Amino acid sequence: MDRKRIEILRSAAAAFRDRGFEAATMGEIAFSVGLTPGALYHYFESKADLLYFCQEVSAVRLIERARKVLRVRGGWRGKLRALIREQVLCMLDELDGAAAHLEFHALPPARLERIIRKRDAYEAVVQGVVEGGIRAREFAPCDAKMATLAILGAVNWAARWYRPGGRLKPEEIADHFSDYLVRGLVR
Amino acid sequence: MDRKRIEILRSAAAAFRDRGFEAATMGEIAFSVGLTPGALYHYFESKADLLYFCQEVSAVRLIERARKVLRVRGGWRGKLRALIREQVLCMLDELDGAAAHLEFHALPPARLERIIRKRDAYEAVVQGVVEGGIRAREFAPCDAKMATLAILGAVNWAARWYRPGGRLKPEEIADHFSDYLVRGLVR
Repeated sequence: MDRKRIEILRSAAAAFRDRGFEAATMGEIAFSVGLTPGALYHYFESKADLLYFCQEVSAVRLIERARKVLRVRGGWRGKLRALIREQVLCMLDELDGAAAHLEFHALPPARLERIIRKRDAYEAVVQGVVEGGIRAREFAPCDAKMATLAILGAVNWAARWYRPGGRLKPEEIADHFSDYLVRGLVR
Repeated sequence: MDRKRIEILRSAAAAFRDRGFEAATMGEIAFSVGLTPGALYHYFESKADLLYFCQEVSAVRLIERARKVLRVRGGWRGKLRALIREQVLCMLDELDGAAAHLEFHALPPARLERIIRKRDAYEAVVQGVVEGGIRAREFAPCDAKMATLAILGAVNWAARWYRPGGRLKPEEIADHFSDYLVRGLVR
């Protein structure tokens, strides 16, 4: 995806986060990236289109990063830690809060289904690492599905409360979250 | 609040969760509780009004429960466990998913501010318990604010994925979540 499209998505994600999907307008998104509304429609045909690509880019990136993390040697603890760090950074840093992915209902059904399938694939990766750690006896026995949903919830929610320029940088939040959420699993 | 109003709020929360606030209609909410749309407007004057009272009831209940939990004797670990359990049950059980509280943007600013103040009060209670546990050396030193936001995120997110009749009952989810989220803090 070219640089202008990414810039637009970043700006759209910020607008959706700050004012909500319904209230954000194509006009303000265009203005924030130095385009006329007409020129913006050249890149994305609607607000729902912007929302879809925000979620698409963010889901694809999560899965790519997860695959990279899993190739790294080291225990399950280290893998899970890296996975959580990457997810926090992905959510807070790269797509400017990516809170767009919290707005599911605005997508048409076919697109929503594609996003849900990608998010399910990511969830399966996280759950696989939790299960791997339990099998290897690095983690205490637990309901891997519930632990996975708690982890994803904690991180996804950060897109809601995070504001750039706050007390902690995304890297610091990523460290605190991964420390805490991995500790809860370790024997 | 009388029983009919609670029944309406429960039904509204389910509609908001299943179809999103924008897509849900006063007509379907009225139908689901055996009222005509006209009769529903006798109880709540608009959809935004319903959303506000969903959030209001849920925030007040959270704070009341939290106060009760804190009066119970026992260590910080037990207090935090009970707090997380109550929050999960509050979210999943009582207001049928209470996912309404995920829809902030639809509230007018003055009402939104009142809800945010109540939610901040609840957050402060949770953070106080985490800090109490750290001071008492029951919990390992950590950033209490970050741990609090991770806990609230994990639990709030459950309103997103939970569906009544799934694999686990709310009580079981409450147990898994409180086990996992307390373990991550304990020394």
